[in-house]
Amino acid sequence: MAKKQLRLGAIIHGVGGNVGGWRHPDAITDASVNFGFYKQQAQKAEQGKFDFVFIADGLYITEKSIPHFLNRFEPVTILSALGAVTSNIGLVGTLSTSYSEPFTVSRQFASLDHISGGRAGWNVVTSPLEGSAKNYSRTSHPTHAERYRIAEEYLEVARGLWDSWEDDAFVRDKASGVFFDPSKMHRLNHEGEHFSVQGPLNIARSKQGHPVVFQAGSSEAGRNLAAKSADAVFTHYDTVEEGAAFVQDVKQRAAAYGRSPDEILILPGIGTIIGRTQEEAEQKYEQLTELVTIDKALDYLGRFFEHFDFSQFPLDEPFPELGDLGSNSFQSGTDKIKREAKELGLTLRQVALRSATPKPRYIGTPETVADLIQADFEAGAGDGFIIHATTPTGLDEFVDQVIPILQERGIFRTEYESDTLRGNLGLAIPENRYTAARKVQVHG
Amino acid sequence: MAKKQLRLGAIIHGVGGNVGGWRHPDAITDASVNFGFYKQQAQKAEQGKFDFVFIADGLYITEKSIPHFLNRFEPVTILSALGAVTSNIGLVGTLSTSYSEPFTVSRQFASLDHISGGRAGWNVVTSPLEGSAKNYSRTSHPTHAERYRIAEEYLEVARGLWDSWEDDAFVRDKASGVFFDPSKMHRLNHEGEHFSVQGPLNIARSKQGHPVVFQAGSSEAGRNLAAKSADAVFTHYDTVEEGAAFVQDVKQRAAAYGRSPDEILILPGIGTIIGRTQEEAEQKYEQLTELVTIDKALDYLGRFFEHFDFSQFPLDEPFPELGDLGSNSFQSGTDKIKREAKELGLTLRQVALRSATPKPRYIGTPETVADLIQADFEAGAGDGFIIHATTPTGLDEFVDQVIPILQERGIFRTEYESDTLRGNLGLAIPENRYTAARKVQVHG
Ligand SMILES: Cc1cc2nc3c(=O)[nH]c(=O)nc-3n(C[C@H](O)[C@H](O)[C@H](O)COP(=O)(O)O)c2cc1C
Ligand SMILES: Cc1cc2nc3c(=O)[nH]c(=O)nc-3n(C[C@H](O)[C@H](O)[C@H](O)COP(=O)(O)O)c2cc1C
Repeated sequence: MAKKQLRLGAIIHGVGGNVGGWRHPDAITDASVNFGFYKQQAQKAEQGKFDFVFIADGLYITEKSIPHFLNRFEPVTILSALGAVTSNIGLVGTLSTSYSEPFTVSRQFASLDHISGGRAGWNVVTSPLEGSAKNYSRTSHPTHAERYRIAEEYLEVARGLWDSWEDDAFVRDKASGVFFDPSKMHRLNHEGEHFSVQGPLNIARSKQGHPVVFQAGSSEAGRNLAAKSADAVFTHYDTVEEGAAFVQDVKQRAAAYGRSPDEILILPGIGTIIGRTQEEAEQKYEQLTELVTIDKALDYLGRFFEHFDFSQFPLDEPFPELGDLGSNSFQSGTDKIKREAKELGLTLRQVALRSATPKPRYIGTPETVADLIQADFEAGAGDGFIIHATTPTGLDEFVDQVIPILQERGIFRTEYESDTLRGNLGLAIPENRYTAARKVQVHG
Repeated sequence: MAKKQLRLGAIIHGVGGNVGGWRHPDAITDASVNFGFYKQQAQKAEQGKFDFVFIADGLYITEKSIPHFLNRFEPVTILSALGAVTSNIGLVGTLSTSYSEPFTVSRQFASLDHISGGRAGWNVVTSPLEGSAKNYSRTSHPTHAERYRIAEEYLEVARGLWDSWEDDAFVRDKASGVFFDPSKMHRLNHEGEHFSVQGPLNIARSKQGHPVVFQAGSSEAGRNLAAKSADAVFTHYDTVEEGAAFVQDVKQRAAAYGRSPDEILILPGIGTIIGRTQEEAEQKYEQLTELVTIDKALDYLGRFFEHFDFSQFPLDEPFPELGDLGSNSFQSGTDKIKREAKELGLTLRQVALRSATPKPRYIGTPETVADLIQADFEAGAGDGFIIHATTPTGLDEFVDQVIPILQERGIFRTEYESDTLRGNLGLAIPENRYTAARKVQVHG
């Protein structure tokens, strides 16, 4: 029997997901707004037969934000551009349900799906940063619970709008003059707590039916939203046990919603550093930590805690008691920071430096990294992983050196199975709700 | 002295801007969602050294909408994709200020500007269609006057956000660890009637400083908005006198706001049909009119009048008296329809067919079309034109047959002057407001 296949995504994030990476000798310092860089990375990932590239996002910055966040491409635009210069790789981007309109967002992802011939994916987030409200004419940031209620309704609307047109609605018969069949155009007429949206959407379903829906939030509410309606979950873990427990938990929740465990893919993000030897890989990590000052590390930590100013505390004393601070923004993340600080007896300095340049678990020679990935995969810690290469040339190294090993071991494709993201991820095309209802009517 | 240069844009609109065009033998019936078609058209326009391609838009459809409106690409996504496969041509798209957020929209156009190396343009519209409210959780569509007040404030916010970062804010010095100069990052802190937006925008100014701002609304309020803050105006006229009067009017209004007439380009849209002989061109038009039925023509007309049902009136009697109907949506357009019906004594049938397949003024051999364009241009009816090719192969014919004549006459470029849209249109890069203020402080 063929081995279970690993799914792989690649995060592209310009000058890097950490504080000091842009100072690396190999870093292109304007990479976050350099289309040539994004194009090269996406094409390299496609050469490596990755399932998708992934673009993260945020809606609020301050002087203390990390370099990549200050000045970066907006996801919908960069993914559309990448769609025009790639042919098989999926295009997944983050867009917040707390500060946008479902008609516009469903339409933009549907349009991206048409442009790319069925490769669009939307990472649904609720926006952790309180300050986002200030950029969107709001008096306050909705609470964590409220944000997830909004997200749930939002996704219902989006999926409804994507079904506005049945697959065979556009007849386009020149001779008879029939462009479309009005009985296959549907108004959603959604009237809910947060949204009222009539429809129809002014774009047809594309090859994927619905773009692939990712969800990235690991709190209780986040897991429930994912279990109910996401196709894939972007998460993070520190130990393989934690990863496997998360996978089990979310798949069980999905089952409670009547879904099969295969209908929802759990894809943890993993940091990688590759060297010719283990020692070289470790040195690469040391080099990265030297690029960060303690001041920047404190700033970075503060961002997770509603831009809290940690510089008021002594660096080498135990991490301060913060009460509820942070639980309304990055809840799952801040809970973990507090818990670990207590469990491991960490000082503020230690917590800050760990956060600013976390040591990736996947560090070593290409074989070692492939071994670690395979072990975690086989231990059930994910249906695959989203690779976050920690150094500027890390993705290129991964494609050139790790992918061939995974392919040789028979756990990763050597050719794309499909030209759609759903096809490659092994996810079914959702049936149009109205077509399904029509069948029930006829056969029921 | 070199002759004054014509500016040219090309509308790309899939299956066409009219009711029956998709039935044309040469029409690609899925063109409105066919990326290959858009790419071919944009590359053809670039081969013809057009200043820009233009994508129109709308936010509400019904069974009676014209085919292109039912199922088309969303502008931000398609322009981003086209940016990746072109190198000099401008990328201009419509986005409504009545149903969107300035932080998101300024950011998307700024991102498009970075992706394309300075070729983005935004056509600011206020959304004529009442029904749009139903897709955006609103109880009502803002009135015409209110929409323009919103648009004015919106544009102030957008221009403010585009200045968030001074041009030299990103130092990116690896050795010193200085990524940016915090004194060159600015918060807008806008608090207005409709919006409160703090900023800064999370993307730097691109090569153009601000994307080029188009405005497309010809009412009093529309002209004032354009005069105050647009770089270019997309309009429409029926006679050269009307065109010249509009140009004079808007340029005078701009002068009243302290602007030079050269700072605002008036670019009327013009329909073209090209034939080897005048007769062949006229036949091409006849062929188009035969593709429309009177029912579809009535539907089309109704759309301008808040989806009014004209089928209740006798076809061959004078156009009915409609009172104020239509003045809250396409004001300038519906006023004109009513006025002409009265002046020319038209029947409902005549009004409907004229609207559904208006006969383009620019019809004939390539020489004739070039003559007409040159004459209108020299009579001051526009700083250039936005070409709306009425048949499926019309843009290709225009590039192959009309452009060489305009070039030979010395009124149109043979090579791009610049790789930015501002550069080609001869528009200056707006100075960053904070950099300007700093200079006043130093020198004042
Ligand atoms: C792995 C992972 C990736 C995330 N990526 C983003 C992102 O790109 N943009 C964003 O605004 N939030 C992102 N989030 C934040 C969540 O979507 C969410 O808004 C926040 O963490 C609060 O939700 P939670 O408490 O359920 O985790 C991410 C969260 C996780 C766990
Ligand atoms: C030449 C021209 C092109 C237009 N293009 C669009 C468009 O693409 N999308 C849209 O929603 N409105 C478009 N409009 C409509 C206007 O932006 C405006 O919303 C409506 O006409 C009411 O404004 P007015 O009365 O000032 O003309 C266009 C108007 C004109 C004159």
